[in-house]
Amino acid sequence: MQKFESLLNQFNTFLNHQDFAFEPIELYAPISYTLALGGKRIRPVMAMLACDIFKGKYEDIINPAMGIEIFHNFTLLHDDIMDDAPIRRGQETVYRKWDSNIAILSGDTMFALAYKYITKTDESYLARILDVFNKTAIEVCEGQQLDMNYENQAKVTIPDYLQMIKLKTAVFLGTSLKIGAIIGNTSKQNIDHIYQFGEQLGMAFQLQDDLLDVFGNEEKFGKQTGGDIISNKKTYLYIKAFELAKGHSLEILNQHFIPDHPDNKSKVAEIKKVYTTLRVHEHVQNEIRKYYNSALDFLTKIEVDDASKDELKLLADKLIKRDY
Amino acid sequence: MQKFESLLNQFNTFLNHQDFAFEPIELYAPISYTLALGGKRIRPVMAMLACDIFKGKYEDIINPAMGIEIFHNFTLLHDDIMDDAPIRRGQETVYRKWDSNIAILSGDTMFALAYKYITKTDESYLARILDVFNKTAIEVCEGQQLDMNYENQAKVTIPDYLQMIKLKTAVFLGTSLKIGAIIGNTSKQNIDHIYQFGEQLGMAFQLQDDLLDVFGNEEKFGKQTGGDIISNKKTYLYIKAFELAKGHSLEILNQHFIPDHPDNKSKVAEIKKVYTTLRVHEHVQNEIRKYYNSALDFLTKIEVDDASKDELKLLADKLIKRDY
Repeated sequence: MQKFESLLNQFNTFLNHQDFAFEPIELYAPISYTLALGGKRIRPVMAMLACDIFKGKYEDIINPAMGIEIFHNFTLLHDDIMDDAPIRRGQETVYRKWDSNIAILSGDTMFALAYKYITKTDESYLARILDVFNKTAIEVCEGQQLDMNYENQAKVTIPDYLQMIKLKTAVFLGTSLKIGAIIGNTSKQNIDHIYQFGEQLGMAFQLQDDLLDVFGNEEKFGKQTGGDIISNKKTYLYIKAFELAKGHSLEILNQHFIPDHPDNKSKVAEIKKVYTTLRVHEHVQNEIRKYYNSALDFLTKIEVDDASKDELKLLADKLIKRDY
Repeated sequence: MQKFESLLNQFNTFLNHQDFAFEPIELYAPISYTLALGGKRIRPVMAMLACDIFKGKYEDIINPAMGIEIFHNFTLLHDDIMDDAPIRRGQETVYRKWDSNIAILSGDTMFALAYKYITKTDESYLARILDVFNKTAIEVCEGQQLDMNYENQAKVTIPDYLQMIKLKTAVFLGTSLKIGAIIGNTSKQNIDHIYQFGEQLGMAFQLQDDLLDVFGNEEKFGKQTGGDIISNKKTYLYIKAFELAKGHSLEILNQHFIPDHPDNKSKVAEIKKVYTTLRVHEHVQNEIRKYYNSALDFLTKIEVDDASKDELKLLADKLIKRDY
């Protein structure tokens, strides 16, 4: 059994040996730039971990893992255009540093490169990993479309929101584990259960991200908090607050959740006060706990040695038990 | 042996039975719209024809052929954003009819759908068709980047231009045939030769498209001529004209190939006069003939019955012997 950090090191070593310095440079420079920005590399390492616990081979998983990471970065690159986002991982986004045409096309190229890497594995797994990857790639696009729809949609319910984050975030975490498990050549049951484990974990992970965006410790969270509030993003917290609010609280929400608020600092402070009064964070924490426990239920169903289960449990805790 | 038109009918029948009316509708409506716009369906039918002449099965090629057509339409969708194109096949482009975010994301979804269809074939061919498809998808992006680069690049040579159209257009025609030939389970030599046949044909096809854009019969060509001249596009004709022009002709070129020309009608007329004086069309026709003959050389090397060769020859003539 190998630990997450050891696999992460192996992955980063592999990634650092990949060369994207091809021509035309206008196309490839943004790709090198994006992949060098870093990030937690959670998805490829999840694929490697799932492969490892089922005794799959490094040489069969490392290229698909790279494909998974490239695909993830491709989605960020295009999302940043659509969301008009200036900063990603502390650096200028590609479409701001270059332009949106460059960002569209280098993103498309990354999508194709992702498939190129995913295809580099033992032929016996190829059809199965492509089936799951193709399905997930489509779902991630559907999730992003829902996310954009919700910006302009007056009424977004909690189930709407959960469906959106499932498609946009959770399925891909499940799929990363599933691809590893397929290449680890384990049983259909194990493959299904580790997928579910990853998907439930993904739900908890995204909800926690929403919570941290409001109540996180900026230093530990690694980005400024309050961004979702400033952009009036209809997160779980936003929707739940409107569900619970009455009288003065509702007035404050309506008064501050407006486009182009003149004072974002006071907006964030006022909204946070309402969230706290309404105990919105407890509702989110309950939801996170529900998904986390559901993930652990699926974990118990995976037939693998105890040390491997411990490693998956550590992964779950690594993803969820962040400070807030 | 089946004829091009028969395969085209089969392809259109299959396409018309595909359902893209999924949720969210904002994502899928542009996909249905794009695929219903029509087009010549050359690439999927080339794949089906290549499969057919090597006695491959309809059920093994029809889904990859659909994937090829979806991929081609995805590239058009994103190219139209990058080129700021208002009209495609006589209708509003997706990014004008909806917006560029919708066009980016429904394009991405089409890319994933293309892979979903391409993956639906006999597993024994999968790794090989993905290798060629992945490579080509990347090359098509590289070609589009070169095309964008040339817009702002002062000096573009004939070899530069030929390399660009090779990547942007020709390789994908070769690849369409190659995928059919792989699924037809023919020899490596035949696969290579039919690829080369398609690539050379693709070069001739694009050069002819450039020629028709200037000298075409608008009714037969199906679109307004002069567009490349109006947009100062550095086509083979443009580059060759600057190579040949001296004195008065050069003055006219310099005078009219400017951004935001006040009178596009006279611009087109004046440039066409210079092209005619310089006999630019003869240079292009020679180049087309060179590539066409090279394609036919590769055709003679393909080991297949004479009726099949005749069918590929008809395809070549269909693509190249258009009126001008």
